[in-house]
Amino acid sequence: MRYFITIRYLGTRYCGWQRQPNGLSVQQCLEEALSTVLRVSVSVVGAGRTDAGVHADKMIAHFDVESPLSDSTSVVRALNSLLPPDIAVYEIRRVQAEAHARFDAIARRYRYTIVQRKDPMRMHTAARCGYGLNVERMNEAAALLLEYQDMTSFSKLHTDVKTNNCIVTEARWECADDCQLIFHISANRFLRNMVRAVVGTLLDVGRGRLSVDDFRKIIEARDRSQASTSAPAEGLSLVEIEYPASVWLD
Amino acid sequence: MRYFITIRYLGTRYCGWQRQPNGLSVQQCLEEALSTVLRVSVSVVGAGRTDAGVHADKMIAHFDVESPLSDSTSVVRALNSLLPPDIAVYEIRRVQAEAHARFDAIARRYRYTIVQRKDPMRMHTAARCGYGLNVERMNEAAALLLEYQDMTSFSKLHTDVKTNNCIVTEARWECADDCQLIFHISANRFLRNMVRAVVGTLLDVGRGRLSVDDFRKIIEARDRSQASTSAPAEGLSLVEIEYPASVWLD
Repeated sequence: MRYFITIRYLGTRYCGWQRQPNGLSVQQCLEEALSTVLRVSVSVVGAGRTDAGVHADKMIAHFDVESPLSDSTSVVRALNSLLPPDIAVYEIRRVQAEAHARFDAIARRYRYTIVQRKDPMRMHTAARCGYGLNVERMNEAAALLLEYQDMTSFSKLHTDVKTNNCIVTEARWECADDCQLIFHISANRFLRNMVRAVVGTLLDVGRGRLSVDDFRKIIEARDRSQASTSAPAEGLSLVEIEYPASVWLD
Repeated sequence: MRYFITIRYLGTRYCGWQRQPNGLSVQQCLEEALSTVLRVSVSVVGAGRTDAGVHADKMIAHFDVESPLSDSTSVVRALNSLLPPDIAVYEIRRVQAEAHARFDAIARRYRYTIVQRKDPMRMHTAARCGYGLNVERMNEAAALLLEYQDMTSFSKLHTDVKTNNCIVTEARWECADDCQLIFHISANRFLRNMVRAVVGTLLDVGRGRLSVDDFRKIIEARDRSQASTSAPAEGLSLVEIEYPASVWLD
């Protein structure tokens, strides 16, 4: 039987979600904790990868076990005791046997946080930007992402996906308290490195290095070399993953 | 001439504000950075001490220099480059020669944050509480703090202060987003360890170990042994310090 597990992590210490030959991954920590608690070797499949240093307010993964969990609440509690303070488990929920954390996700949302002055309280969860930014112009450019589907210009080169098409449904900057600037972006899917490449390029719009029209040309070029340097990992967090109601069993 | 410097720090790595023979203090880091930038040995006097692991959204300290700072903005920038990511400087402002960061402060405000479930994003800035809490009752008890001045029951024993009287002007719990419970407390002054002792005792009210009336009796006992164990350091942050307008020069 298959379960979805909902977790949250501070990615600072990890080489990313995905297991790597060198470096500690969130996946490895979770698999080890699950295997210990359930007393059977467990593998998990995540809804997506997060890069080294990227966080997740909410990540979902699936795993299979032979017999049903009699009390998922106590499994959650045991996992939280076992896992380090930077990884938490919130829910384990039974799904259809063929439900897939990655392939069945219909929408994902990310948040990118920028602080415009040094902020010790956000040293792990925000990127710092020392220059002035024109947020209005950044929002004009961000809105263009909803007009296009081919996001090749913001994709890591040489990935193995069949299509670079993404349906972006939300892309906006919000000026929040305390000198914070928060970028919200939702899409049915994201390409590797896409949010950080989008943010890096929008920051160049914000500081006047690129115009809104340049941003449009970059999207249309379908060429990663046209976009700007990716924004740093620490500002990025996966915040939501949506599934159709049909995946849940109960 | 004397200046007030406004700083923010994440206290996790430090043995507290105050210099200690063993362990790194925020004061030491700040004095070293100031001495490097101003090219003269500088000592700072803080508005108060924070214990090991306690944070400050806003701490103020004073220091003296022989000649006026020609450009305080660039001193702030240089300090921020030099200081580690968990300490930030926001402002340096000239004050009256006799202004004193500690003695002239007329009000201070602290915040204590509790998370009711494990939260990696707040692992450094909140304490976790695994049991259910009756917030209404905690607020009833907290309101009693405004009726009394002698806070001996919440004071560290054997401190050298002349009086244990504090005028508490605000003491309330707020239920915030995301399973957070935040305690706001303001007073003209605080005794050592006072907020953490108050919070620890209010948590015992919240979980039903103490009644609101017991809390009143604890205040009236003027005896530290009556109060509960102090709440852990990581949940506490100094958030505001107020001075009379007369301290500022200009």
